[in-house]
Amino acid sequence: MNDKINLAEKLATFTEHWAPRTVARLNDLDVMVVKVEGEFVWHHHDDTDDFFLVLSGEIDIELPERTVTLGEGEIFIVPKGIEHRPVARREAHLLLIEPSGTPNTGTAETAAPRREI
Amino acid sequence: MNDKINLAEKLATFTEHWAPRTVARLNDLDVMVVKVEGEFVWHHHDDTDDFFLVLSGEIDIELPERTVTLGEGEIFIVPKGIEHRPVARREAHLLLIEPSGTPNTGTAETAAPRREI
Repeated sequence: MNDKINLAEKLATFTEHWAPRTVARLNDLDVMVVKVEGEFVWHHHDDTDDFFLVLSGEIDIELPERTVTLGEGEIFIVPKGIEHRPVARREAHLLLIEPSGTPNTGTAETAAPRREI
Repeated sequence: MNDKINLAEKLATFTEHWAPRTVARLNDLDVMVVKVEGEFVWHHHDDTDDFFLVLSGEIDIELPERTVTLGEGEIFIVPKGIEHRPVARREAHLLLIEPSGTPNTGTAETAAPRREI
């Protein structure tokens, strides 16, 4: 059986941005931590909602008609099919939850590999 | 489309223990906040893993062979089918994720109703 997961300890093991690390599995979902800074790409997921929880820092989730700004302890769930672009003016740390194998850019060709830590 | 969810604001809207509030939906899952204190009941879920993230405080998750103690920023996922009992010596606040309709006690007869806030 899995052990407990300390999110700060997991985040301390890497420095790259926009490269999620899977820290646990919940049924068919990956629970991931990621460090972000700067602008990601506009993308959407045809088959799943997209869960963001800010662990530290602040991010903007740009949507077609508006921007949602999230601080520490705030969640936003992008509904499936909706275009979005995460942007972080300074480094922020996030918890992400998506079905295992979901490409982080929306398409397999450009997605970061799924890595477990 | 949903707005962002501030977990501290959601937690400030109620005081009961062991009565999860659904704050968002992720595909077919409920994302919930809960306040806990004291001993819950031993139970298991036949059909789903059980996700716990401690937002504040500390909890023990008692398992058949051991106890996992979780502090703030720590996750534990109880695999489906495994008996467990959460215990909090003082009030703790958690984020829970389970398929919508999963009874928190393992059986519908004794489960807290699902409430959205």
